[in-house]
Amino acid sequence: MIRSIEWCSDAVRFIDQTALPSKEIWIRTSDIAELAEAIRTLKVRGAPLIGIAAAYGILLGLLPYRNAPIDVCLEHYHASADLLAATRPTAKNLFWALERMNEAVRLNHTNKSSVLFDMLEEEAVQIHDDDRRKCASMGFYGAQLIENDARILTHCNTGALATGGIGTALGMITTAFTSGKKLSVFVDETRPLFQGARLTMWELQKNNIPATLITDSSAAWTIKNKKIDMIVVGADRIVANGDVANKIGTYALAILARTFNIPFYVVAPTSTIDITLASGEEIPIEERQETDVTAGFVNAITPQGSRVYAPAFDVTPAALITALITERGIHRPPYAASLRKALEP
Amino acid sequence: MIRSIEWCSDAVRFIDQTALPSKEIWIRTSDIAELAEAIRTLKVRGAPLIGIAAAYGILLGLLPYRNAPIDVCLEHYHASADLLAATRPTAKNLFWALERMNEAVRLNHTNKSSVLFDMLEEEAVQIHDDDRRKCASMGFYGAQLIENDARILTHCNTGALATGGIGTALGMITTAFTSGKKLSVFVDETRPLFQGARLTMWELQKNNIPATLITDSSAAWTIKNKKIDMIVVGADRIVANGDVANKIGTYALAILARTFNIPFYVVAPTSTIDITLASGEEIPIEERQETDVTAGFVNAITPQGSRVYAPAFDVTPAALITALITERGIHRPPYAASLRKALEP
Repeated sequence: MIRSIEWCSDAVRFIDQTALPSKEIWIRTSDIAELAEAIRTLKVRGAPLIGIAAAYGILLGLLPYRNAPIDVCLEHYHASADLLAATRPTAKNLFWALERMNEAVRLNHTNKSSVLFDMLEEEAVQIHDDDRRKCASMGFYGAQLIENDARILTHCNTGALATGGIGTALGMITTAFTSGKKLSVFVDETRPLFQGARLTMWELQKNNIPATLITDSSAAWTIKNKKIDMIVVGADRIVANGDVANKIGTYALAILARTFNIPFYVVAPTSTIDITLASGEEIPIEERQETDVTAGFVNAITPQGSRVYAPAFDVTPAALITALITERGIHRPPYAASLRKALEP
Repeated sequence: MIRSIEWCSDAVRFIDQTALPSKEIWIRTSDIAELAEAIRTLKVRGAPLIGIAAAYGILLGLLPYRNAPIDVCLEHYHASADLLAATRPTAKNLFWALERMNEAVRLNHTNKSSVLFDMLEEEAVQIHDDDRRKCASMGFYGAQLIENDARILTHCNTGALATGGIGTALGMITTAFTSGKKLSVFVDETRPLFQGARLTMWELQKNNIPATLITDSSAAWTIKNKKIDMIVVGADRIVANGDVANKIGTYALAILARTFNIPFYVVAPTSTIDITLASGEEIPIEERQETDVTAGFVNAITPQGSRVYAPAFDVTPAALITALITERGIHRPPYAASLRKALEP
């Protein structure tokens, strides 16, 4: 199985996703600043994986202070959390994981930094393990929605590289395939950073799942001519009414699914749900630097000084989504009710 | 004014569009094979320009035989036409221009190759001149559809680089701007070959028209958040019922326009109309080589052996098109009638 991140007691190891598929480079670091930079520059990416990385990042921030006085340790804990929270704004999982770490700090009164560190280490490993189990569960539920011989369109990368387990949308596809269903996957290349072309194609190839790459703009024509049966995507944040923020391009796919009358499924762990926001309008959408578009993984293609609008995500209105799949099951409209139910203890 | 091709009596000169925007390289050739290869490899591209290039290509094919016996000259004429017709399958203008040259051959009985050559040279120059005038006319009609302060989304390159004049869709934008209307253009980068990012951004910059680049998949989000007023595109072939083949991605944009309830205009000279085909289903759609996607203007981004579906064009159903603009005016549904009218002498 593909793994994307590992905790090694005094360091974190992760695969540098910007080097894939040409090179499989593992980076090992004990430096929280290096990890934060890796998240910012998408060496570590994918909403659930960012959450896991942030939890481990807290540990890196405290490593030098595990034997320091508790107030020094706590001070560095808060600085670490702030640093990690500032890396990327859209994915809920980042803040969810930091909140879980914070809860662990709040609940465990201690005077010993080493004890606090051990508890936080346990919590971070638990967050990672939980995500692995949630992926398996999403795969189980989601695979039920996939018929034999299905032709599936997906966007961005939502597999093992994006999570602590087999993935969300891609995990659902992998589970259906492993269970013996024949299927064929069409993969949006996902400009500007080519997560589909570089990462999803790589994962599908490793798992021997038939896959065909398309440019993002080919989706409408491909749905029509290649008789796509369904679209499945992941999510970076799902709000109370079911609106979904996900990699830029998702919104357009949902509109196409509606036009062609095929289902549009969103697969995400409950850690992606942000019930404190009423609708997608309230989700902070990251805008990437212009060079992601003009020169990211690409030789310079634009005239010098070209202005670029480069949102990293968009919001897909709940009305365009057939069902949301979390590790708790398949959630149908009305989402205000079904999401609340998904979050029940 | 930007020019993209020139006839020089014994050679054709054209700008190498694959080198733009980094380099402005003019290629001069008297070799029809080199010109045909330039069309195939998109050094010369854009439906109307391909037609003009093909007309000049016929001349290149006959250059060595302008003093040969007429049967030798005619033999090379047919071989030249076949070679040029095989370069790219979708754009109607290529076949339209070759047919115009053929008509000139049919109508002009002569025993002298040099006379035939002169007549064909006159016809080719006429095709070029006609296209320049048609562009001006499309600009005149199309600009009427653009309000002051319009925010316009366009796809691919449909400007001076794609035609013998100011362009089709981009010519309409340029005309509105030149006439004093304030406007702002959003440009789809147009994967896989980045005609929007490389060529349209370059033309808009040269004309000082405010332009912002987006990735193709950002269109839905951009229409919503940047309050796009209209989408304008060119065409490679328009068939009897109004279905339009154009650069891959156009179909999706038309669906988005319908969803957001904004107009979707197609701008093309009547030489793009193919009334012999009843519907878009009959249009031959070029599929490009996989490397256009995996490595075209881009470092290798996919794992070795990735399968790619790379249609160069798609067909936008007439039902999604607000109006078609040709040099004859603005044509509204039902297109079966209005297109027939557009082609009336």
